[in-house]
Amino acid sequence: MKQNKLNNVALGNIKINDDFWNKYTDLVDDVILPFQWELINDNVEGAEKSYCIQNFRIACGDIEGKHQGMVFQDTDVAKWLEAVGFSLAKKPNSKLEAIADEAIDLIARAQCEDGYLNTYYTITGEPRWSNLFEGHELYTAGHMIEAAVAYYQATGKRKILDVVCRFADYMCQVFGADEGKIHGYPGHPEVELALVKLYRVTGKKKYLNLANDFVRMRGEKPCYFLSEDCIKNQNFIFPEFKDFDMDYTQAHLPMKEQVTAEGHAVRAVYLYSAMADLAYEYQDEALLKQCDVIWNNIVDKRMYITGSIGSASYGERFTTDYDLPNNTNYSESCATIGLAMFSNRMFQITKDGKYADVVEQALYNTLLSGIAQDGKHFFYVNPLEVVPEIAEKNPTMRHVKTTRQLWFGVACCPPNIARTLASLGDYAYAVGDNEIYVNLFVSSRIEAGLKSGKTTLELQANYPEHGDIKLKVTPERDGQVFEVAVRKPGFSKNAVVTVNGEVVEYCLEKGYLYLEREWKSGDVIEVQLDVSFRFVYSNPKVRDNIGRVSLMKGPWVYCLEEEDNGTYLSSIMIDTASAPVKKEDPQLLGGTMCAELKGKRINYQKVEEELYCEHGPEYIEDTFKAIPYCCWNNRSKGEMLVWMREQ
Amino acid sequence: MKQNKLNNVALGNIKINDDFWNKYTDLVDDVILPFQWELINDNVEGAEKSYCIQNFRIACGDIEGKHQGMVFQDTDVAKWLEAVGFSLAKKPNSKLEAIADEAIDLIARAQCEDGYLNTYYTITGEPRWSNLFEGHELYTAGHMIEAAVAYYQATGKRKILDVVCRFADYMCQVFGADEGKIHGYPGHPEVELALVKLYRVTGKKKYLNLANDFVRMRGEKPCYFLSEDCIKNQNFIFPEFKDFDMDYTQAHLPMKEQVTAEGHAVRAVYLYSAMADLAYEYQDEALLKQCDVIWNNIVDKRMYITGSIGSASYGERFTTDYDLPNNTNYSESCATIGLAMFSNRMFQITKDGKYADVVEQALYNTLLSGIAQDGKHFFYVNPLEVVPEIAEKNPTMRHVKTTRQLWFGVACCPPNIARTLASLGDYAYAVGDNEIYVNLFVSSRIEAGLKSGKTTLELQANYPEHGDIKLKVTPERDGQVFEVAVRKPGFSKNAVVTVNGEVVEYCLEKGYLYLEREWKSGDVIEVQLDVSFRFVYSNPKVRDNIGRVSLMKGPWVYCLEEEDNGTYLSSIMIDTASAPVKKEDPQLLGGTMCAELKGKRINYQKVEEELYCEHGPEYIEDTFKAIPYCCWNNRSKGEMLVWMREQ
Repeated sequence: MKQNKLNNVALGNIKINDDFWNKYTDLVDDVILPFQWELINDNVEGAEKSYCIQNFRIACGDIEGKHQGMVFQDTDVAKWLEAVGFSLAKKPNSKLEAIADEAIDLIARAQCEDGYLNTYYTITGEPRWSNLFEGHELYTAGHMIEAAVAYYQATGKRKILDVVCRFADYMCQVFGADEGKIHGYPGHPEVELALVKLYRVTGKKKYLNLANDFVRMRGEKPCYFLSEDCIKNQNFIFPEFKDFDMDYTQAHLPMKEQVTAEGHAVRAVYLYSAMADLAYEYQDEALLKQCDVIWNNIVDKRMYITGSIGSASYGERFTTDYDLPNNTNYSESCATIGLAMFSNRMFQITKDGKYADVVEQALYNTLLSGIAQDGKHFFYVNPLEVVPEIAEKNPTMRHVKTTRQLWFGVACCPPNIARTLASLGDYAYAVGDNEIYVNLFVSSRIEAGLKSGKTTLELQANYPEHGDIKLKVTPERDGQVFEVAVRKPGFSKNAVVTVNGEVVEYCLEKGYLYLEREWKSGDVIEVQLDVSFRFVYSNPKVRDNIGRVSLMKGPWVYCLEEEDNGTYLSSIMIDTASAPVKKEDPQLLGGTMCAELKGKRINYQKVEEELYCEHGPEYIEDTFKAIPYCCWNNRSKGEMLVWMREQ
Repeated sequence: MKQNKLNNVALGNIKINDDFWNKYTDLVDDVILPFQWELINDNVEGAEKSYCIQNFRIACGDIEGKHQGMVFQDTDVAKWLEAVGFSLAKKPNSKLEAIADEAIDLIARAQCEDGYLNTYYTITGEPRWSNLFEGHELYTAGHMIEAAVAYYQATGKRKILDVVCRFADYMCQVFGADEGKIHGYPGHPEVELALVKLYRVTGKKKYLNLANDFVRMRGEKPCYFLSEDCIKNQNFIFPEFKDFDMDYTQAHLPMKEQVTAEGHAVRAVYLYSAMADLAYEYQDEALLKQCDVIWNNIVDKRMYITGSIGSASYGERFTTDYDLPNNTNYSESCATIGLAMFSNRMFQITKDGKYADVVEQALYNTLLSGIAQDGKHFFYVNPLEVVPEIAEKNPTMRHVKTTRQLWFGVACCPPNIARTLASLGDYAYAVGDNEIYVNLFVSSRIEAGLKSGKTTLELQANYPEHGDIKLKVTPERDGQVFEVAVRKPGFSKNAVVTVNGEVVEYCLEKGYLYLEREWKSGDVIEVQLDVSFRFVYSNPKVRDNIGRVSLMKGPWVYCLEEEDNGTYLSSIMIDTASAPVKKEDPQLLGGTMCAELKGKRINYQKVEEELYCEHGPEYIEDTFKAIPYCCWNNRSKGEMLVWMREQ
């Protein structure tokens, strides 16, 4: 490694002002965060009860009652608070801050004398750490730590940070590789990456060491989860867990022997994110290499074209290489977020654009598919093919919802989507000592403190629609020398770069266009990327996509919807010899770049009654309209299809 | 109706001597029945424990212990005993009969004073009839009654018949529409059709009436299963049941309002079989019409080409019209058997060949797919597409087994297959007052007592391979007049009929070739059916089969296996313009009619590493070998595919 990793630009120094993304990010500040607060306070009619805040009140002794909701229900307020932190970092909001301070007071009062914090175990009195396999105590702790770090960084207020430090101090006494401590680790990874964050903000090495112990002990034989200390002598909280093998929770092998992405997809990518953090902190080249091997296994063999992961609903998990069914998959919004987290960490360590390409793919497709344009409805599961009648009546697809839901009993995805949108800047830019990396082409303005001086970049883009990116550079002083690294996405067949209108030479390395010069105020970099429509095929080892093709434009995956194309989308055959035609539809969902495709479809007018017969159907020529996948299901319930038959 | 229904020919009067079928039916007598006896006595190493006989020993007080196995474990011995009855009817076997008598003694001793018989409830002491939704008491009773009827008819021994009559007498006191009785009905239908059988053999009308009450009360509002008397206040035996709606068990509507096949497929077709019986017994035209409506819904919209039903594993159930996924379906062997039972009843009442066509389709494909050619390994689940690696690693398909299993914990299918094979004659022939119906073209010899006199028919066929059927008629006396009705399968585009070598006119009605004349000894009817290979398409409303084609020959559905064609069967495109070529393979599985097909496949040698790219794969021309679906998985574990892409 021998190099420092890149870092985020403070969110307060990034102002996003993008026609496409602001549709979503403004929702976070204006709609989602206030709405989520009402939701976790059970004030929204028609939504499933959260019980989250109520559980804290009970744990404090403010009211009487029993714990309700999932064992990890506390994470609802934690993820909300983290998103609030990100939001406040970007834009002060005294009303929101006051609510958050109120929530923090409540959380602080629910903390036990010794630092322990978890309403489920506090209220029920069940023994702490008695079911690490299923109990989600460390997972919940992790989200609380992430929230505290974000809120502290946004506001400078230490109260919640002190709360989680006390909790982490207590965990350091209880867990670890040292003799006399519990050699267990979380059934659901999350605390590991959170402890690294806490170490980075406090400088306390013991937090890093505990994260490291958790990761290194995982999967060592004898497996902790199969030991007498753990679940096997107990009742299962989740009955289906008793059927799960150790690979469900990535504890089937020591981490250093794992080379494929296995098990529950969210757990996996949260764990790999921590592995990447630890590889960097301990300058462990072998561990970093292994992260890359696992990452490649995901991206080369187990990832949907929409940047989602988790091919099976049962276990919400990875299955095997090239197994990517389109209508029975899980593809959880949270897993996509975790994949973006893992990829972004790998990018910051290696400066390799392949990782940032996947961040972009995940965010532009599945992340946004997870949220409705009203900011109040969410998908957990993001299939690539839906036929509502079948999804609703065939219980093989009972995990698939045919419209976004207001709020779920298990509310992991909505607040996770909110915190990701609120921290979009962390994915858009990164800085080194004297370099600025531009990863996402989101119109915005950043200030970055480089070794050579403070620098402002203003990015203007019409992307993915047109692929033209303009960067206005304002150095602290003219003649300041630093590098601007603009990601050249893997899909872009070429890139034309000009500075102040003149074509310039650039250094292209691992997917980045590097421009170094003496910058002066008002310099304008322009990059023209190729975002023309393209038909994309799967590797034919993906059986479900044989004979099928998808349409992309830049990072956007397109889909057909029933609203535009009628029913039986799977009967449509696309003529890939005809170039897709751009159709900007300013009326559609606030302005959407659609595609018109030529092809054929079965003439269902002439279909007979018989179930089986000796003649094939008649086809008729037709044109079809495709829209970005992230926009689907914002108009009506209906069929949707990504992988279309090729004529 | 106004007509008597057709009847079975006594099994003792049918001698099957068929190259194809005897491979299976001989297994029943020689291998399966002795083997199953060892299995239910837990004497087979490597097989899951059955506990069936042990439970009876405990219930009798012979040994101490607790009930083990499923609540309906008693049905293992019942279905075995029923098959023994059928087997003994065909061919005396004193050793088998002695074992059966021993089993009957044990069963009789397990019966309670008042006639109740069920080891689970007797041993556990749980209140009888306290959980009709899940407890399977009436289902178990039904199988015991069917066994008793078969054994009595084969041997004339009354002991087990008396046992079930006492049980049925007791049930008549407890259940029924009369005031003061339980107005409940079984969660799993089966007892209804069994009570009709018991009525027919004993003449006791009250058994028929109870069957009728069970069927007529079902689904009436308020629904019994939702009443306080039933499950809702209790613990669930099967946790997943609490998620099931009333349509799972066909209790969502009164039977007279049900027009689609819903819920658990085995339950459904057992219930519909009883409905057909009752429609006939009560000469209820409306109910018969309704049976036909439901039957048409199955056959026209919800049945696989292999004659299997149940599109979803969760709930083992029907889903919705045209929803026929090929790799996640359940298609349980028992459900196919139930569909054959229902269809055979409908045929016997209506004399309509469409029903017998489905009997044939079910038996020639899914029934035989359910059993290995060693007679000791069975499939419960019969998918139409299997990729072992994916089926084993993607838990969406965790119900799919990639090789037949020795015996399952829930042992419904193996004994059900055995009893069906043992009673094949019931499906092959039927007789009216003075007509003989020939339904299955299985080489055999039958004696039928007609109004005009006793008649012998000798059938010789080489079917489905060649489609030539020869029937030698031997009337009791020359000049005897009666009708021979030979089924002309729906797939046969024509039929040439000769008697003693001369082409004759025949009357074709509802799928039967009727021949009436003064028969004399030695008359030979020859029927040439068209069993040439044919490509068959699904209705394009079946999305999973769009762009795909299957191959059939007579009733046989063909499939591709990895053993013959390598991996990635789903990459193969069949050229349907090239006629399939017959390839008789005398070495393969005791002689199999294979097909050689022309087409193309993806050249996997040239496939690159990328998961997604902008160019489609290269295809190469190749020939492929298809074998009958019923033969699959008898050589090696591997991929299998029924619906092939069409070039």
